[in-house]
Amino acid sequence: MKILIINGPNLNLLGVREPTIYGNTGFDSYLVKLKEQYPNIEISYFQSNHEGVLVDKLHEVGFQPVGIILNAGAYTHTSVALADAISAITAPVIEVHISNVMRREQFRHHSYISPVCVGTIAGFGLDSYRLALEALINICKE
Amino acid sequence: MKILIINGPNLNLLGVREPTIYGNTGFDSYLVKLKEQYPNIEISYFQSNHEGVLVDKLHEVGFQPVGIILNAGAYTHTSVALADAISAITAPVIEVHISNVMRREQFRHHSYISPVCVGTIAGFGLDSYRLALEALINICKE
Amino acid sequence: MKILIINGPNLNLLGVREPTIYGNTGFDSYLVKLKEQYPNIEISYFQSNHEGVLVDKLHEVGFQPVGIILNAGAYTHTSVALADAISAITAPVIEVHISNVMRREQFRHHSYISPVCVGTIAGFGLDSYRLALEALINICKE
Amino acid sequence: MKILIINGPNLNLLGVREPTIYGNTGFDSYLVKLKEQYPNIEISYFQSNHEGVLVDKLHEVGFQPVGIILNAGAYTHTSVALADAISAITAPVIEVHISNVMRREQFRHHSYISPVCVGTIAGFGLDSYRLALEALINICKE
Amino acid sequence: MKILIINGPNLNLLGVREPTIYGNTGFDSYLVKLKEQYPNIEISYFQSNHEGVLVDKLHEVGFQPVGIILNAGAYTHTSVALADAISAITAPVIEVHISNVMRREQFRHHSYISPVCVGTIAGFGLDSYRLALEALINICKE
Amino acid sequence: MKILIINGPNLNLLGVREPTIYGNTGFDSYLVKLKEQYPNIEISYFQSNHEGVLVDKLHEVGFQPVGIILNAGAYTHTSVALADAISAITAPVIEVHISNVMRREQFRHHSYISPVCVGTIAGFGLDSYRLALEALINICKE
Amino acid sequence: MKILIINGPNLNLLGVREPTIYGNTGFDSYLVKLKEQYPNIEISYFQSNHEGVLVDKLHEVGFQPVGIILNAGAYTHTSVALADAISAITAPVIEVHISNVMRREQFRHHSYISPVCVGTIAGFGLDSYRLALEALINICKE
Amino acid sequence: MKILIINGPNLNLLGVREPTIYGNTGFDSYLVKLKEQYPNIEISYFQSNHEGVLVDKLHEVGFQPVGIILNAGAYTHTSVALADAISAITAPVIEVHISNVMRREQFRHHSYISPVCVGTIAGFGLDSYRLALEALINICKE
Amino acid sequence: MKILIINGPNLNLLGVREPTIYGNTGFDSYLVKLKEQYPNIEISYFQSNHEGVLVDKLHEVGFQPVGIILNAGAYTHTSVALADAISAITAPVIEVHISNVMRREQFRHHSYISPVCVGTIAGFGLDSYRLALEALINICKE
Amino acid sequence: MKILIINGPNLNLLGVREPTIYGNTGFDSYLVKLKEQYPNIEISYFQSNHEGVLVDKLHEVGFQPVGIILNAGAYTHTSVALADAISAITAPVIEVHISNVMRREQFRHHSYISPVCVGTIAGFGLDSYRLALEALINICKE
Amino acid sequence: MKILIINGPNLNLLGVREPTIYGNTGFDSYLVKLKEQYPNIEISYFQSNHEGVLVDKLHEVGFQPVGIILNAGAYTHTSVALADAISAITAPVIEVHISNVMRREQFRHHSYISPVCVGTIAGFGLDSYRLALEALINICKE
Amino acid sequence: MKILIINGPNLNLLGVREPTIYGNTGFDSYLVKLKEQYPNIEISYFQSNHEGVLVDKLHEVGFQPVGIILNAGAYTHTSVALADAISAITAPVIEVHISNVMRREQFRHHSYISPVCVGTIAGFGLDSYRLALEALINICKE
Repeated sequence: MKILIINGPNLNLLGVREPTIYGNTGFDSYLVKLKEQYPNIEISYFQSNHEGVLVDKLHEVGFQPVGIILNAGAYTHTSVALADAISAITAPVIEVHISNVMRREQFRHHSYISPVCVGTIAGFGLDSYRLALEALINICKE
Repeated sequence: MKILIINGPNLNLLGVREPTIYGNTGFDSYLVKLKEQYPNIEISYFQSNHEGVLVDKLHEVGFQPVGIILNAGAYTHTSVALADAISAITAPVIEVHISNVMRREQFRHHSYISPVCVGTIAGFGLDSYRLALEALINICKE
Repeated sequence: MKILIINGPNLNLLGVREPTIYGNTGFDSYLVKLKEQYPNIEISYFQSNHEGVLVDKLHEVGFQPVGIILNAGAYTHTSVALADAISAITAPVIEVHISNVMRREQFRHHSYISPVCVGTIAGFGLDSYRLALEALINICKE
Repeated sequence: MKILIINGPNLNLLGVREPTIYGNTGFDSYLVKLKEQYPNIEISYFQSNHEGVLVDKLHEVGFQPVGIILNAGAYTHTSVALADAISAITAPVIEVHISNVMRREQFRHHSYISPVCVGTIAGFGLDSYRLALEALINICKE
Repeated sequence: MKILIINGPNLNLLGVREPTIYGNTGFDSYLVKLKEQYPNIEISYFQSNHEGVLVDKLHEVGFQPVGIILNAGAYTHTSVALADAISAITAPVIEVHISNVMRREQFRHHSYISPVCVGTIAGFGLDSYRLALEALINICKE
Repeated sequence: MKILIINGPNLNLLGVREPTIYGNTGFDSYLVKLKEQYPNIEISYFQSNHEGVLVDKLHEVGFQPVGIILNAGAYTHTSVALADAISAITAPVIEVHISNVMRREQFRHHSYISPVCVGTIAGFGLDSYRLALEALINICKE
Repeated sequence: MKILIINGPNLNLLGVREPTIYGNTGFDSYLVKLKEQYPNIEISYFQSNHEGVLVDKLHEVGFQPVGIILNAGAYTHTSVALADAISAITAPVIEVHISNVMRREQFRHHSYISPVCVGTIAGFGLDSYRLALEALINICKE
Repeated sequence: MKILIINGPNLNLLGVREPTIYGNTGFDSYLVKLKEQYPNIEISYFQSNHEGVLVDKLHEVGFQPVGIILNAGAYTHTSVALADAISAITAPVIEVHISNVMRREQFRHHSYISPVCVGTIAGFGLDSYRLALEALINICKE
Repeated sequence: MKILIINGPNLNLLGVREPTIYGNTGFDSYLVKLKEQYPNIEISYFQSNHEGVLVDKLHEVGFQPVGIILNAGAYTHTSVALADAISAITAPVIEVHISNVMRREQFRHHSYISPVCVGTIAGFGLDSYRLALEALINICKE
Repeated sequence: MKILIINGPNLNLLGVREPTIYGNTGFDSYLVKLKEQYPNIEISYFQSNHEGVLVDKLHEVGFQPVGIILNAGAYTHTSVALADAISAITAPVIEVHISNVMRREQFRHHSYISPVCVGTIAGFGLDSYRLALEALINICKE
Repeated sequence: MKILIINGPNLNLLGVREPTIYGNTGFDSYLVKLKEQYPNIEISYFQSNHEGVLVDKLHEVGFQPVGIILNAGAYTHTSVALADAISAITAPVIEVHISNVMRREQFRHHSYISPVCVGTIAGFGLDSYRLALEALINICKE
Repeated sequence: MKILIINGPNLNLLGVREPTIYGNTGFDSYLVKLKEQYPNIEISYFQSNHEGVLVDKLHEVGFQPVGIILNAGAYTHTSVALADAISAITAPVIEVHISNVMRREQFRHHSYISPVCVGTIAGFGLDSYRLALEALINICKE
């Protein structure tokens, strides 16, 4: 089973950026632990601050037998292009957010990608990624 | 470790009601399987179609050492009383939805309870409950 | 043929409450006359001021061979739970209003239940109930 | 007792136009049956696709002892002129719709004529006209 | 000097229609008095309930040396076609209203034709027409 | 002179719930002091988390010679049913809030019950109830 | 017969300020001509840039036998205080504007004072004042 | 192959009306040239300023083997009746506009007919009609 | 203990202005009675129709040991300057209204000053001022 | 004559992506046919999923003697940067869409680029590109 | 070179009022330093809490050879009168704010005066005034 | 002291693009003059049309001792990603605009980046950059 985690803009700064909102663990050290927890699953990782690069990536992997965990960051709220890419591909995509976006600014309450993803997991810190992984494992079983 | 799952209005009809949206498994048979999967966790269950009864229940258990998984159903979108009850209690509450609410009618896109819950899990069918349980286990660890 | 009339909040005060809007006939005396007019139809009646009790009632009777006439009163404008209950059941439901709601306050112009009912009859005083009954008779014929 | 049924734009195409929404019975054949059902009532019929012609007709008959059943079709949602005409005349006017307009596009949810009609009947197919006729009979009795 | 007064829908009922709003003088008797007051001005009059006929009329006279006084009635609030016709012609058009439209329903507060008319006179009963005539006389002088 | 204080949802948790907003005095101990301050007035108290129970209570007491002080809590912002109940009864009702609701979330700025109450008192902590009592005493005098 | 013309903020700059919108005649020279045209009417004039001074002035003269012509300028769109003053007094007030306000910025399309004035005259340059005077003469006659 | 071009309100004034927006060629001279360019296609033409007449025309020809090019002018933005007529008929309809409507007033940005037409062509001056004709030729081929 | 009552625009006309809304007692005679009722409290009074004068007054007294009762009248709904003045000073300010503002026009439902006052008292006629005074006495005690 | 066709995000998946909306012909095979149909026109093609790359491309070619056909895909609805680029360059740009965007989700109804393009062609499948080419040929002639 | 700094409502309290937002330097001491820094520029200063007085001041100086730095405070968000005054005069006006208004309440995000000023400088504390002065010096050079 | 000026999309065309709005000086020649004026400050420059590249650049320099002057161009109005990047870094960022954006299209009135920048300078042509530099110098001093 193969899983791709895609992080959008500014998530390369995790652990550095606004720690009261996003915590102070960097994504790399989190990823090491996650792989240890799920040794039978092939987890790969991709991050970009470029909307177009994220769209390209979804096209590249989206027709392969892979489950995608997508934290689109700020593009969640502004990118129709990403939403269209998710609609276009065949791989299941799960939307995750580290923070509880509904507790933050008004403009973060709307997501262009929610309606085209399988489902959404938000507010559990970095554990949101593991929960999405659990969800994908279950989807594969079915 | 103790978990309480609370289901709101019309969720007593699961398996019967609109199966294209909610699937055709009743909640009782799902609960049996869930308990088997997590034998070390004490899982109890409560359902009501009454907003006031749900508020009463949250008050009753909300100051105990318990994690709460809440699918508030239709009250998600209309009940400030439930949101206030969640704010008032000390137990962590996780919002779950069976369907991907963001793909449905406009009035289901707003949730009064999201900002006062720990986080939200939506769109994974009945597996949303298990993911919430996983999230609570992780919260307890920390 | 069986018909259930369900009245929502404050409709127990009919004949007493704001007579310029709702008239001064109580519902009980109206019901006697209605039954006399339609001796071959079994008409029963239920009223509650509780949203949850109305949802419970719809669940209880909604899978039986019955036609339902529902004046949801104030819950027309605020209850997604009632709308979901109507969607979930199989019995046909007709929405009635005594007054012409479109002539009143802005917040009474929206109905959560209209889209999930067969149809709507509003503005004919208590005669709205008889017209709904006529509609149900016709639906049964077809 | 005299009744005038007025149909607005595109209702001349009934039975031809979008049968999944409006059914496949033409209005003429329906009218024959309706007259048979109510032999003591003088029912006449008028249809026009012209807003101005409908206003003229309302002026022409609206000060006579007649009950009016009006399906204003698309003009329901756009015509202040029709609403003003209904306010200006003395005959009672009942608004009818064949389909459940509240289940359709957003712009069909608003009616300029509802507040100036006696009441509204919507969603019962062609039977909506008979129900309106029943309502007018009752109004006359009172 | 030539003046054309054009009245829109339902204004043929002046003196009959809602006298608390529009007064109880018919337009014909008012017109007689107005002509007496301004014997040197050639005043003609046109009324129609048809949007299209009003547009046709504006086209017909709108390139002649004439001043136009237009009470577009309900079409004030709904007709882009009338507004476009006023823009298209060369004759000056003055918008009048008998009642103070800003004191009435919300939908009467917006006028499509105000921005394309010379100016607006509203709320003076039938005297609004005379004031518009005075305004046109002054425009001609300049 | 008889006064009934009615508290809505979550107000049973006063003194426990969010003390920075609602203070840390329970309502029971406050009530004791209030009764001592006004020995000649018969003050009774009722609390429920159920919208329907609050409606029932208003019906039960609302036609008696009593003044009602209502803190509808969260139902202030969502319950048309409560507003209709207040309109239906004859006893004067005064709306109170402990906190300054206009300083809090946007959805707390709208009250369905304000227009049907005598008046509103908000922001004075528990003293809001005493002020409402003073207001009722004055209303009785007049 | 006595008339008071009141001009609001920035109208002291008439003839100087934005001549493409307001023309290049100062109000003083216009006033001289107006008085000549209506020798039998006692016309006085008041201008202030202060909302409060305009309110004071309306109070001072508003209970006398006088007709008031008010160009409230920018306060038209922002002053509830002026609107309340007009409601409070007994003298008739007519709203005038030099320019066609509906052709200008969106925020100039709303007037707080229109609903409390007798009527509105807008778009005729300085002639708007004479038309208002004509309107007041007619009101006095009746 | 048969094509019908239908022009709505004010388009009879083409070449005369606002030449900076609509150009100064009349439609008749354009039509002559268009027919010369497409000698094998039978092109007929209809214009009316009346919404109802346009609806009638669509009904008359809309069930024949014809392609319709419709410039509904101002009715584009206000007529649900026209949109319903287009939905009701079987002939393909293409929406055209001479000017780039999205560059003009806000109220011209919404079209009731776009969703029920095959497609839209706007902004190319009179050439918009030829492009629509090209589109219909291609639709016929397929 | 010192109290300053400040009344905003048009409140100098109390007893004269719209008596169905504001009653027919002038503020001066009310003040006499109020002072008699509270002989130990030094009550002073200030009224102005000028927003700027009200701001000046708040600055002048707002850093002294005084409680302020403010009926800002129309400026309640339009003055950010007053709200900023209240925020800037240290004396507690209580917002009062004579009428139930929530029962009146939509634009009176919003108050710029509510969020920066201690609390609000509205709808009790002139007794609103006494209740505010009671509230201030209680605030001082604490 | 030189034409550049620019396709925006996800249009590289044409023929693969959502064939019920976009058809199942890839753009490359369409382009071959188009070039055959117009042998005298030099047609080049560019596609990118990157907003910034599209802006760069417009800058690169936009001051050359070329006509541009732009299907901006999802960026149509979100990119002010693209709109600014189109305004900045001198080459004519035509907006095309394969699907009828007005029949789809609400957020696709607004286009930032329509007001700065020559015109728009939408809803004709891949033929929209040929129609745009025809439009550019005609623009060049003039 | 002459510069006039105009401060609006509540800015007389600088150094006293809400120091976390506005800092704790009074404007007078700041002005002394500013004059020292720019000895060749004649800087004068004016402050008022009265909208009308500010309008009067702009009229008085606005046709002289002077540059104006205006911090309109709360009137920024509510005063069309000030905006009209700025449009009417010939002297250049620069809008300044001490705080970053876009980070504060929603109602502070809109400025009536921005579109009629040369430009805006906001968020730099008292240094905003010096930057505006620098901007005026540069404007004069050109 | 080090300053980085970052220009967003289409600003590479300065001097070429819409000179009536942006002037006809290219940024390079402006930069030369600016450096001459501030010889002691190390000024570097970066421009990109790519949102992602701008985010990358902010990350790269944003944790160094540098002041950033950012003209985000069109991304000002659409990019949450840029706003999040500014929040994430530690270097102070000043928002500048060449034109007075509040005088232009509605969609340019909202800035996602204003609330996360130190302050905003807009409307002074290229001098806006120098003013921002002056602001940064002052921030460093403090």
